[in-house]
Amino acid sequence: MSEFQPTERTQVKRLPKRGHYDSETVYGILDSAFVCHVGFCVEGQPYVIPTNYGRSGDTLYVHGSAASRMLRTLSGGVPVCVTVTHVDGLVLARSAFHHSVNYRSVVILGTARLVEEPAEKMEALRLFTEHVMKGRWDDVRLPTEQEMKATTVLAIPLEEVSAKVRTGGPVDDEADYSLPVWAGVLPLETVAKEPVPDAQRKNDRPLPDYLKNHTR
Amino acid sequence: MSEFQPTERTQVKRLPKRGHYDSETVYGILDSAFVCHVGFCVEGQPYVIPTNYGRSGDTLYVHGSAASRMLRTLSGGVPVCVTVTHVDGLVLARSAFHHSVNYRSVVILGTARLVEEPAEKMEALRLFTEHVMKGRWDDVRLPTEQEMKATTVLAIPLEEVSAKVRTGGPVDDEADYSLPVWAGVLPLETVAKEPVPDAQRKNDRPLPDYLKNHTR
Repeated sequence: MSEFQPTERTQVKRLPKRGHYDSETVYGILDSAFVCHVGFCVEGQPYVIPTNYGRSGDTLYVHGSAASRMLRTLSGGVPVCVTVTHVDGLVLARSAFHHSVNYRSVVILGTARLVEEPAEKMEALRLFTEHVMKGRWDDVRLPTEQEMKATTVLAIPLEEVSAKVRTGGPVDDEADYSLPVWAGVLPLETVAKEPVPDAQRKNDRPLPDYLKNHTR
Repeated sequence: MSEFQPTERTQVKRLPKRGHYDSETVYGILDSAFVCHVGFCVEGQPYVIPTNYGRSGDTLYVHGSAASRMLRTLSGGVPVCVTVTHVDGLVLARSAFHHSVNYRSVVILGTARLVEEPAEKMEALRLFTEHVMKGRWDDVRLPTEQEMKATTVLAIPLEEVSAKVRTGGPVDDEADYSLPVWAGVLPLETVAKEPVPDAQRKNDRPLPDYLKNHTR
């Protein structure tokens, strides 16, 4: 199992047992979500913007309008942080203090590279689509040259990366275990509901297999 | 209905109709989530960390261990960005380019204030607990003086705030509507599953009402 090398900046110090640096854990978290939060600084002010992403090996791709502040800023080769978080449950302890959340998160630090080579750019666009819905790329009209120009794609290397994971029930102070309080976990899950066909249907095909019983 | 004043930094420029500045929309998004992503800069490097929050009027509270880098950094009165995002659905268009996500997000820019006054600090801790599980505070052992000391609470004013919302179906190019492609929305929802009681039960009460049929 390959490992990312923890750095001074990515090592989980305060609760070290929650830190994970193996690629299996990192890839698993990245591949089962599709919205990340991208952080960047402009004149000392941090901005945190939710956006989609895709992954190929040890490269994470984000994209957006060439006109957006985020894409213009990051195209300049400034430091970036990308965070992906799953919330898996509420941890209800017997004391307020020990309440917690079960979660899996990945934090990526690095510098974005502007993807200019057309083949890599098209492949990144395929990854975005396939990442949210596997099988979708083969069904849809592919990007035109003009759409490609209007889209900025950035590549962020998965090098300085760590995952943080909390699982399991509450951990209470010894004396609190005898308190008459319900304690445990309320698991949370993101589920897909019934697909809603576009009202402006003309030649739309029937519901594709990848949308039947879709799970995230 | 009160409004936040959009600034040069918070005004939604590229897709202005997605921007919302009224407090009803902002509060609605903040009050129906419980994990935010906090952004801060250290020597030019942005960090984005998921954490819990609570809200009281136009103040957002975040908290954590007094030992954490995030809390230590933000206690110093540096600029911060707090982003809260709900992902409501995948928008599947007839072209790859027009694929999108239905979401509701709030971005807060500001500077954090360290909460030192004991009554405000205790009230913030109550808000964190009640924010994840309404009714919980009355059941649990309240924070001790030592626990209060180990916890840093920060207040971020809701002043420079904007919301961004996308709803509805795909918006395709006119010529693409006749393509034989299924198009529509796959709605996503976070649901609570069956509560899991702590294995180390002693005097635990039966499942409280606030955990029965809990919806988020």
